[in-house]
Amino acid sequence: MDIEKLLEEKSAIVNKELERVFSGNIPNLYDAIDYHIETGGKRIRPVLALLTCEALGGNSKKALPFAVACEILHNWLLVHDDIEDGDRVRRDKPAMWVKYGLAHGVNAGDLMAQKVYESILNSELDNDKIVKLMEAMVTASVKTAEGQAMDINLRQNNEPTESDYMNTVIGKTAYYLSVPMVGGAIVAEADNAIKALEEFGRNAGPAFQIADDLLDLTEGKGRGEIGCDIKEGKRSILVVHCLSKCDIDEKARLLDILNKPAEETGTEEVLWVKELFEKHGSVDYARKKSQELVEKAKASIEGLPEELREILNYFADYLIERKK
Amino acid sequence: MDIEKLLEEKSAIVNKELERVFSGNIPNLYDAIDYHIETGGKRIRPVLALLTCEALGGNSKKALPFAVACEILHNWLLVHDDIEDGDRVRRDKPAMWVKYGLAHGVNAGDLMAQKVYESILNSELDNDKIVKLMEAMVTASVKTAEGQAMDINLRQNNEPTESDYMNTVIGKTAYYLSVPMVGGAIVAEADNAIKALEEFGRNAGPAFQIADDLLDLTEGKGRGEIGCDIKEGKRSILVVHCLSKCDIDEKARLLDILNKPAEETGTEEVLWVKELFEKHGSVDYARKKSQELVEKAKASIEGLPEELREILNYFADYLIERKK
Repeated sequence: MDIEKLLEEKSAIVNKELERVFSGNIPNLYDAIDYHIETGGKRIRPVLALLTCEALGGNSKKALPFAVACEILHNWLLVHDDIEDGDRVRRDKPAMWVKYGLAHGVNAGDLMAQKVYESILNSELDNDKIVKLMEAMVTASVKTAEGQAMDINLRQNNEPTESDYMNTVIGKTAYYLSVPMVGGAIVAEADNAIKALEEFGRNAGPAFQIADDLLDLTEGKGRGEIGCDIKEGKRSILVVHCLSKCDIDEKARLLDILNKPAEETGTEEVLWVKELFEKHGSVDYARKKSQELVEKAKASIEGLPEELREILNYFADYLIERKK
Repeated sequence: MDIEKLLEEKSAIVNKELERVFSGNIPNLYDAIDYHIETGGKRIRPVLALLTCEALGGNSKKALPFAVACEILHNWLLVHDDIEDGDRVRRDKPAMWVKYGLAHGVNAGDLMAQKVYESILNSELDNDKIVKLMEAMVTASVKTAEGQAMDINLRQNNEPTESDYMNTVIGKTAYYLSVPMVGGAIVAEADNAIKALEEFGRNAGPAFQIADDLLDLTEGKGRGEIGCDIKEGKRSILVVHCLSKCDIDEKARLLDILNKPAEETGTEEVLWVKELFEKHGSVDYARKKSQELVEKAKASIEGLPEELREILNYFADYLIERKK
């Protein structure tokens, strides 16, 4: 199976549909959303929805509105996350709220959230299935917002434990990674696959987040520089591990750097933190942890059809090996 | 019919349900939402949903989840509006985003938006009706976000016409005022009433907004001072009317005051604007316009059952006569 090619084909279908959904002509609303959506993204979530549906014997055309809803969800969360984190750059361009202003940024995100549900309602499916898809989406969105609140809280926490970290990232990433696959299964009437797909997300989501934590130190996540997470004081897995290993003076300096405003953190301080992570083996620890979670994700879908396993295993590897 | 008493009884039921919906224990999320909800509000929208359902022969218990969804919608929009407008005070208390921070403010609003749909999904109704309610809610929310974008744009507009103003306030207020009544009619299986109820909202919503514009000059809308709209540069009906009447020097000064940052606008300037509105008859014009719209709202429901008309007429008068 040529998954790269499938990804390309399916993401083109999704892009076309996204264009249609956001084709209104109110200035600073639909154009702002188009601007954000065109900054890129690999459409992994909607493609996962379509491929899961097909691999489970369903008609992926009927899953397209739900798949698109998943991509809208993802992008709405990015738009609002950038505001919440004070991130000014997204995929090497000004974040939407920076280009269009805070007021339009919040409001355009709110419209996108509604378009998630509008898209699902436009599915050519019976109402029982539509309600099931709605329930899956609401649950995922509620869990994600809860995880986000925990994440914001974690940044004020000077004694974060690995269990705090894992609870937060499971909330923030697991459900909204698994919901596309769950929706694909609902459309394919393969409800018996749902539990395994949720378990897959529960492991692959945090693996993805840890890979993201690592990317901040190496590639910089499309923000033109490395160490943004350090400047923002995020309690990444690296921070959590390092705090448990370093001595009292290192801990004091690390927390001082993390807790000061992002704009006051200099490059030297970022590099000092990076070296501290390396000194205490936090980078290796994070890599290993991410790999372990990917293995657990793969193990959780052993009972699913081979074609679906092949696809999900590919994405699991992709999630932690990506460069941006 | 003792509508005051009904309002009290029904709003108590709604408050109890709201408490249940937001009973999670993640710090800075559910407590932040409780804080906002407990700042008050008269629960007019959910009560309208319940009373409309009953007056059309439906079982209002079955409409309760939708009624609560309408109140959550209203409060989610208030939470995000305060951020978008930079309003720091809501109902004489610090706005939620001021008390809990911008990040939690955006995120808690997002969670509330999900709870709108979760609440509808929890209705004890068949899935066909649930889908109908979902569709009504999505349409109202999309129209409201479109209206909000138009409103933010209008503030940059130095030549706003009454038609710009009306299009904006219809988008921003009409749909989300009528959606509780429409939902009540759907639950009562009185779909033939929907068109009149939408027309009612199309007139009563803007009437409410104009009354709100006027309140800013007299009572101050619970923000501890009058003239916040002037400081924020809102293009109220007063501004739109006054700009069409005043001379070139007055226009220049009015726009100068409206367009400078809110924190740079002094009390004297606010009072000068207020006097200018009075000089050109803008206050009288707004009062008359609001009254006319209320009359149109009442006329649009002439074909509906008497009990329902009595309730809606009461609320129409209430909307423009309220003091806060």
